[in-house]
Amino acid sequence: MSNNSLGIGVVGYGYWGPNLVRNFASNPSARVVCVSDLDPQRLADSRRLYPNLTTTCAYEDIIKNPEVDAVVIATPVHTHYELALAALKAGKHVLVEKPLASSADMARRLIDEADRRGLTLMVDHTFLYTPAIQKIRELLLKDELGQIYYYDSTRSSLGLFQRDVNVIWDLAVHDISIIHYILEEEPVAVSATGSCHVAGSPENMAHITLFFDSPCVAHVSVNWLSPIKVRQTFVGGSNKMIVYDDLEPTEKIKVYDKGITLNGTTEDAKEFRIGYRAGDMWAPHISTKEALQTEVEHFIDCACNGTKPISNGISALRVIEVLEAASRSIAQQGRPIVLKAPQQIWKRARATA
Amino acid sequence: MSNNSLGIGVVGYGYWGPNLVRNFASNPSARVVCVSDLDPQRLADSRRLYPNLTTTCAYEDIIKNPEVDAVVIATPVHTHYELALAALKAGKHVLVEKPLASSADMARRLIDEADRRGLTLMVDHTFLYTPAIQKIRELLLKDELGQIYYYDSTRSSLGLFQRDVNVIWDLAVHDISIIHYILEEEPVAVSATGSCHVAGSPENMAHITLFFDSPCVAHVSVNWLSPIKVRQTFVGGSNKMIVYDDLEPTEKIKVYDKGITLNGTTEDAKEFRIGYRAGDMWAPHISTKEALQTEVEHFIDCACNGTKPISNGISALRVIEVLEAASRSIAQQGRPIVLKAPQQIWKRARATA
Amino acid sequence: MSNNSLGIGVVGYGYWGPNLVRNFASNPSARVVCVSDLDPQRLADSRRLYPNLTTTCAYEDIIKNPEVDAVVIATPVHTHYELALAALKAGKHVLVEKPLASSADMARRLIDEADRRGLTLMVDHTFLYTPAIQKIRELLLKDELGQIYYYDSTRSSLGLFQRDVNVIWDLAVHDISIIHYILEEEPVAVSATGSCHVAGSPENMAHITLFFDSPCVAHVSVNWLSPIKVRQTFVGGSNKMIVYDDLEPTEKIKVYDKGITLNGTTEDAKEFRIGYRAGDMWAPHISTKEALQTEVEHFIDCACNGTKPISNGISALRVIEVLEAASRSIAQQGRPIVLKAPQQIWKRARATA
Amino acid sequence: MSNNSLGIGVVGYGYWGPNLVRNFASNPSARVVCVSDLDPQRLADSRRLYPNLTTTCAYEDIIKNPEVDAVVIATPVHTHYELALAALKAGKHVLVEKPLASSADMARRLIDEADRRGLTLMVDHTFLYTPAIQKIRELLLKDELGQIYYYDSTRSSLGLFQRDVNVIWDLAVHDISIIHYILEEEPVAVSATGSCHVAGSPENMAHITLFFDSPCVAHVSVNWLSPIKVRQTFVGGSNKMIVYDDLEPTEKIKVYDKGITLNGTTEDAKEFRIGYRAGDMWAPHISTKEALQTEVEHFIDCACNGTKPISNGISALRVIEVLEAASRSIAQQGRPIVLKAPQQIWKRARATA
Repeated sequence: MSNNSLGIGVVGYGYWGPNLVRNFASNPSARVVCVSDLDPQRLADSRRLYPNLTTTCAYEDIIKNPEVDAVVIATPVHTHYELALAALKAGKHVLVEKPLASSADMARRLIDEADRRGLTLMVDHTFLYTPAIQKIRELLLKDELGQIYYYDSTRSSLGLFQRDVNVIWDLAVHDISIIHYILEEEPVAVSATGSCHVAGSPENMAHITLFFDSPCVAHVSVNWLSPIKVRQTFVGGSNKMIVYDDLEPTEKIKVYDKGITLNGTTEDAKEFRIGYRAGDMWAPHISTKEALQTEVEHFIDCACNGTKPISNGISALRVIEVLEAASRSIAQQGRPIVLKAPQQIWKRARATA
Repeated sequence: MSNNSLGIGVVGYGYWGPNLVRNFASNPSARVVCVSDLDPQRLADSRRLYPNLTTTCAYEDIIKNPEVDAVVIATPVHTHYELALAALKAGKHVLVEKPLASSADMARRLIDEADRRGLTLMVDHTFLYTPAIQKIRELLLKDELGQIYYYDSTRSSLGLFQRDVNVIWDLAVHDISIIHYILEEEPVAVSATGSCHVAGSPENMAHITLFFDSPCVAHVSVNWLSPIKVRQTFVGGSNKMIVYDDLEPTEKIKVYDKGITLNGTTEDAKEFRIGYRAGDMWAPHISTKEALQTEVEHFIDCACNGTKPISNGISALRVIEVLEAASRSIAQQGRPIVLKAPQQIWKRARATA
Repeated sequence: MSNNSLGIGVVGYGYWGPNLVRNFASNPSARVVCVSDLDPQRLADSRRLYPNLTTTCAYEDIIKNPEVDAVVIATPVHTHYELALAALKAGKHVLVEKPLASSADMARRLIDEADRRGLTLMVDHTFLYTPAIQKIRELLLKDELGQIYYYDSTRSSLGLFQRDVNVIWDLAVHDISIIHYILEEEPVAVSATGSCHVAGSPENMAHITLFFDSPCVAHVSVNWLSPIKVRQTFVGGSNKMIVYDDLEPTEKIKVYDKGITLNGTTEDAKEFRIGYRAGDMWAPHISTKEALQTEVEHFIDCACNGTKPISNGISALRVIEVLEAASRSIAQQGRPIVLKAPQQIWKRARATA
Repeated sequence: MSNNSLGIGVVGYGYWGPNLVRNFASNPSARVVCVSDLDPQRLADSRRLYPNLTTTCAYEDIIKNPEVDAVVIATPVHTHYELALAALKAGKHVLVEKPLASSADMARRLIDEADRRGLTLMVDHTFLYTPAIQKIRELLLKDELGQIYYYDSTRSSLGLFQRDVNVIWDLAVHDISIIHYILEEEPVAVSATGSCHVAGSPENMAHITLFFDSPCVAHVSVNWLSPIKVRQTFVGGSNKMIVYDDLEPTEKIKVYDKGITLNGTTEDAKEFRIGYRAGDMWAPHISTKEALQTEVEHFIDCACNGTKPISNGISALRVIEVLEAASRSIAQQGRPIVLKAPQQIWKRARATA
């Protein structure tokens, strides 16, 4: 690390790359050295905003650049593995856009490479760094909700079809990473269904159920073909329940002091109305700090100090294992797939986290 | 039929019965003769509102009453079969609260009994008679949406647990009947997951995917343990898409002139942004006529004139077959269940509908 | 009072009368003896629901009926004075639909008559008995909001034009009574503007500003010609602010822990951004008890025990004085009208309240 | 104009200036030459984004710069007149942030100076260039709404107090300019009330009624001390009505095919329910083009070709005259102020527009 600041090389300046560059550029502990992209027009765009930037069409220029301490990869999913591996082999810390790689095997090889070299490998699961998800995790850690009954999320909108991954690798990946982060429990099986409405395109609509050893169940609904944008998550517990709407400008999280009470004595032949509590609703104030700013600070800290990232390789691998299992289930119209938790790696992750 | 009006006997005066009595009582072609319930207090309530009513704790009094031309059954699900069968055997037309019976076998026996005696057998799938669903069906029949891609519905709220049926028999039954009615296509397989969070209670949360021979897919999410009430349905087509929110007081249906256009020439390595059309939104005026009023008129017409009801025994059976298959899938964590369409009965239904 | 229950006679069975009858009928301390209306069809409707009811087209039958202890008046505004006066003179307690009378003079004469005879005179300012307004009053009494800066309310919808009163006597009357009730401060002047868009009809749209001795200001916007229904009130204080939306099914009141903090040291030539606090939002659970049920209980209690009603004659008079002043201001395009608080009467009201 | 592009100098780089610089910088027909601000930090910010920019703390450097063809002023309101006059005298076209000046007299002098020199004088009434307002104007021009009954707008939020102007000069100025633009009718009188809740600060809350010769009435409610942001405008007509919510991300404008029909024959003693039509609602697709981009294109076109701007000096003057009259009315608690339309200037405006 030269000049007391982390030298950053960014590969890919398409949809997400400019956000990464902007956040690294405004962080005083980092310095964006170089940007690469296959499209010269995008590189010209980047130079207009950051005149001191070196740009290149060859990502090798970044990986070989001795001023680059860390490589940030914001390219299509199918290129993640090759680029990240090359960067690690060149001794660079790596931050990869989600998902970490196209397969669990590839993810494992990246984890091994980073571990062997003592380098930071982090995946850009941006939502983990949003004030909203951090608040929800805080509420769950404080046991505000009681026993968690379910996580139920809908993430849909119109128009941004991906070419190399289906809708679960693009959208459900957010929820899988959130579920792991806030529930701190590993799913044991997954059932998923999906469908494709555009010939030659991957699935654009899917529904995933995750089973756990606990009574908790998680469901994720994703759709690239919705007339309106929806980003809504329900978390139900025995004491309280959360409705999290990421499209709300200010009151993103609403905590409902509602639930059921069991009334075992009713003799009603038709139905027993389980009693329900209906108390106050409370919307905690949520910081408006940009998630990517927090994430970039965290990555720099991890790279400089050797701390294990929150969204480390192992947690990225866990997400990919679920995505792979869900894809297999989709191909079999919902047949449940047992997730064989790779015990060795998990244990290592726990030990070092 | 005496006095030029249909004599009605109502069995069950709990949650839904009063609505049925009120609508039959205000229909000039019907006359509520008698109400039965096991709870004397409820009967007293009914007499307070309708002083000319005969009440009884014994449903046999209704079935034997020669002034009763038609029996309306609003009792717990597990009693439907026995009560409906007794009424049919006594020569009465029958309207049964949804679902028609606890099993497909029972439903088939009721259909046979009604057919043999030339009596009207109708199930109270109320939503089919709402102005909103009738408008959606009209839009689909006019091919306003183009090819139908999906039906995706969420139906959740807090507190009304049923004792003898799980949440899909209570809530998803609405969507299954709606799907059959508006899509006019039979699902060929179902995958469903569900969970129970109250010991000794049936499943209170479930997610169902229905597969069709066409590219259409249907998904239904139901939950008795949601902090807020949700009644929202998306219907996506190749030309337009509908968002139907039954909780909206006036603009229940919104039709979006939105969709995707394929742009095959892009060379973008990262993603191909399928083009999307974003046109006007349109909320057709929806009548505020109470669905049950329409349904009661329809039942009276069918009973008096021998017309086949929209929600006839066969369509009720189709719904139950899906519910049974979904329940089997839930027990196997989402394993898909093939729906063997009972061809003979279907054909008969088609022929007579 | 015969039979240990208050005998009730209801004059007027149009839009609001049935709600009054229903609530008195279900109160065990009252007994609806008789209903009058000029329209025989309405009387038939009432008999259908309440077969033991006596009905008449002549309100004198009610006033003369010795079984009637209290007369409830739900007729057009211009008839309130005459009917209420006759009832009081016959020794009956009186509950009158809002507003109490067509003019402050008439209201004063009714107050005097009731006082002289020791009878209860109450006006049906229903909103004062809603759980939402009672909660807001409670929050203000506990000084949760700090110094009150403003009350700003919008009340609009489409279609229910009144013939004998304009929109402020129909809709703003609610807000004026609420303002008096929750602020406990009398306005000292009023400026109002209004307009009429239907020839020969009274004003259908109006905006009223009320000035107080304190820095508080109140504004009320009412409209009979709005495409959508709005019932929204903002109450701003130095510590917290309330948004009350009466159309919300459950979270009617939201309390925002927001406000400004003064930052006097800024030297910015363009603007000084007064600092602002943005804290949590909180929606207290609101009971779903029907306001009219609470009001009817209160009226019965006042009539039986001689308690002063919350919405007594004096508070009704205060509302009418504001309505009259607002009407005068409307006629002069907003010219402010000073409200001469009738000191004697006020003092009496305070002394006895 | 050198280099076939309009040389732009921007005075003021605070809240709004950066948006102006960004839009001029991205317009191929313009070239931002120089930016001035009293705050060196802001100038450093501007240079970081636009490294080729000249910056200065002295606005005279801009006005004297021969490469500057047009001066864009984004400074506090009380400085507008002096800066704009100096720029015009130096032969520059001028675009001034709203409002044009602190008084109508100043505005008139600027108009005269620009006219005398044949220079473009334009005010940044940004809303006139939003796709939403242009769509509303289009609907009114096509007579979609029938006779216009009212314009009723609420514009409120928390926290951005201005030092040199009150809330009507800051927020209501938008509505006044919109009203003039879409109604194409001049108000004949104004009544306004306002209040100040921060000692030493201008009014932070106000309500304005504008009267017209036609039956149309306009009302504007503005508030700097609201717990939630509101940007909602109702436009009511005899045939249709519009609800325009600027905070909606996509469906900003909803057109309701609703209204009243007169039913003169009713004999109801209580009320005559004027009949009402309740038809479809329609939300026309609105372009997402940034208003400031359209405005900047228009300014460049006017400066280069001598076209009269939509938001020209005369229309800016009309707005200020209303603001001045409203301020006078506020000082007198709502007393109506007659607007003497300055006939000569109006006629000239009409002739040249």
